[in-house]
Amino acid sequence: MKRLRLDLITKRWVILTEENNSFSEIPNQQAQTDPADCPFCLNNESMTPPETDADRPGDGRPNSPGWLTRTVPNKFPALDNKAELRKEKEGIFEKQKGFGFHEVIVETPDHDRMMADLSQEEISRVIKAYRRRFISLAKDKRFKYILIFKNHGLAAGASLEHTHTQLICLPIIPKRVTEELDCAKAYFNRNNQCMFCKIVEKEREEKIRVVSENEDFIAFCPFFSRSPFEITILPVKHRPDFSKIKPGEIKNLSAILKDLMAKLGKVLGDYPFNFLIHTSPVNSQNRTSPLDNFYHWHIEFLPKLGEIAGFEWATGSYINPLLPEEAARRLNAT
Amino acid sequence: MKRLRLDLITKRWVILTEENNSFSEIPNQQAQTDPADCPFCLNNESMTPPETDADRPGDGRPNSPGWLTRTVPNKFPALDNKAELRKEKEGIFEKQKGFGFHEVIVETPDHDRMMADLSQEEISRVIKAYRRRFISLAKDKRFKYILIFKNHGLAAGASLEHTHTQLICLPIIPKRVTEELDCAKAYFNRNNQCMFCKIVEKEREEKIRVVSENEDFIAFCPFFSRSPFEITILPVKHRPDFSKIKPGEIKNLSAILKDLMAKLGKVLGDYPFNFLIHTSPVNSQNRTSPLDNFYHWHIEFLPKLGEIAGFEWATGSYINPLLPEEAARRLNAT
Repeated sequence: MKRLRLDLITKRWVILTEENNSFSEIPNQQAQTDPADCPFCLNNESMTPPETDADRPGDGRPNSPGWLTRTVPNKFPALDNKAELRKEKEGIFEKQKGFGFHEVIVETPDHDRMMADLSQEEISRVIKAYRRRFISLAKDKRFKYILIFKNHGLAAGASLEHTHTQLICLPIIPKRVTEELDCAKAYFNRNNQCMFCKIVEKEREEKIRVVSENEDFIAFCPFFSRSPFEITILPVKHRPDFSKIKPGEIKNLSAILKDLMAKLGKVLGDYPFNFLIHTSPVNSQNRTSPLDNFYHWHIEFLPKLGEIAGFEWATGSYINPLLPEEAARRLNAT
Repeated sequence: MKRLRLDLITKRWVILTEENNSFSEIPNQQAQTDPADCPFCLNNESMTPPETDADRPGDGRPNSPGWLTRTVPNKFPALDNKAELRKEKEGIFEKQKGFGFHEVIVETPDHDRMMADLSQEEISRVIKAYRRRFISLAKDKRFKYILIFKNHGLAAGASLEHTHTQLICLPIIPKRVTEELDCAKAYFNRNNQCMFCKIVEKEREEKIRVVSENEDFIAFCPFFSRSPFEITILPVKHRPDFSKIKPGEIKNLSAILKDLMAKLGKVLGDYPFNFLIHTSPVNSQNRTSPLDNFYHWHIEFLPKLGEIAGFEWATGSYINPLLPEEAARRLNAT
């Protein structure tokens, strides 16, 4: 069973699991799977739960080979789509059953290629898969936030080697998202302008932190980077909602990702990273203060080069040994 | 030079450094120092900046051997005590010079013992060193928060092997602390009781998450643990300020720490961990809403057994594969 418990001290929800308490103290090892045993490889479709989406140009049967991207429910989900949605009290504490949904988007049938090895066209197919699943899952009104994220490498939390992205549907708007919405709304109310549009303007003007850009997207090392080579990717035009991305924008986003990963690879080799899409909550529009005015979706791309330590846990602040201007200079020198 | 930059999107401060941009992409390695080259070893006192505190029972000269604990300014500080304290604007962005102070408290002259190996009396000496430095540094009115924390093991961010604690003085109250104060204040205003006192009461009543306790302190796996074997240590009586800890309480705290680390060691072996003291801000008392009423200092003890991944970065939430009740059961079965 999955449970959500509210941290009284910071107001964040924690997801707890009690699968016969099988947690082992032995540190996690990334499965260096043989493609023959890999559930994400071609011809192993029966090793996953039945697919929910696939890009299958030859129009074959579901759960058969012939796909280019394939989405399946996570076999070990963080949340359970059968739980009820109800908050409960336990004395001073708040909890609820761990309702939600958790999928895996397999980015390519090839076991040995990572996202950075995919062609621009293949990356476009992956983004289209993200969009299809997002739109489909957002129809369930019980979901309040849909998170698309990718962990690459053991140090960034990936447990399977075959390149994939995760999608989690949450029954709550998580704290980090609420914080971001609150900051963006406050900025909009003060300045009658979207904070992210203003950041795009500033970065294009100064140029010193930009790593890649085209007419639809800009990738840069943010002014307040918390770790070396942190990258933000913003749509250049005001775009609140990832799922409304247009076909031409998908092409331009995949071009930026391809260029960015090539530059990062030249500087860092095969490095662990996290890739997150920050977008508007679903089923939560507020007519009196429309989210669409003040929010702007974006991607956070975080190479994992250091550890979160005591200082970061205690303060929520970060110590970054590399200025973003210097990180951008190194990436652009490749 | 050190700089603070404000993250516009989350309102956290980031500390940036630009020491001739010497950051290297090669992953950090813990220095497996030979005691002969270790700046924290006996007879190597000249390898550190001049000491600011020492427990030297024989009353020897400063910076000579004969000490049991020794505090020195950090040779590679995160913040610079010579910078000015002034906020500046850079267009849309906010920044300030990186003013602050950063010390290292060497817990024992012995290179080969870790904190868990120290006797109860030795741990008491370490806590007394924390208190002396806290009280002395809090006299500088420019400091708003003093953080005492310890990283043990490379995976928890320690860069030197010889056991030590860090102390950082900040010119701001960091975001994570403000959040905690706000939650505690809101709870107090609603219930006319300290939230932490209420948690102590609940844990003592239920017993199922308690790992160690005596008349002054209680250690337990919190109801909303975000990672396996996370521990909170709370003073049993209402105590807002770590630096006011009494001699008898120091003795009882060191007894709890000794017992706790013995139990954790039996279950986890030599595991990486972070140890943080959460206490009231300094030089920030507010007469109309006295912090002393609603806040209660405590210790967070976080074994590092997994990685922060995309889900955690994006949501501020955590996925914990071990229920705190089961973690406490395993620790108590030792």
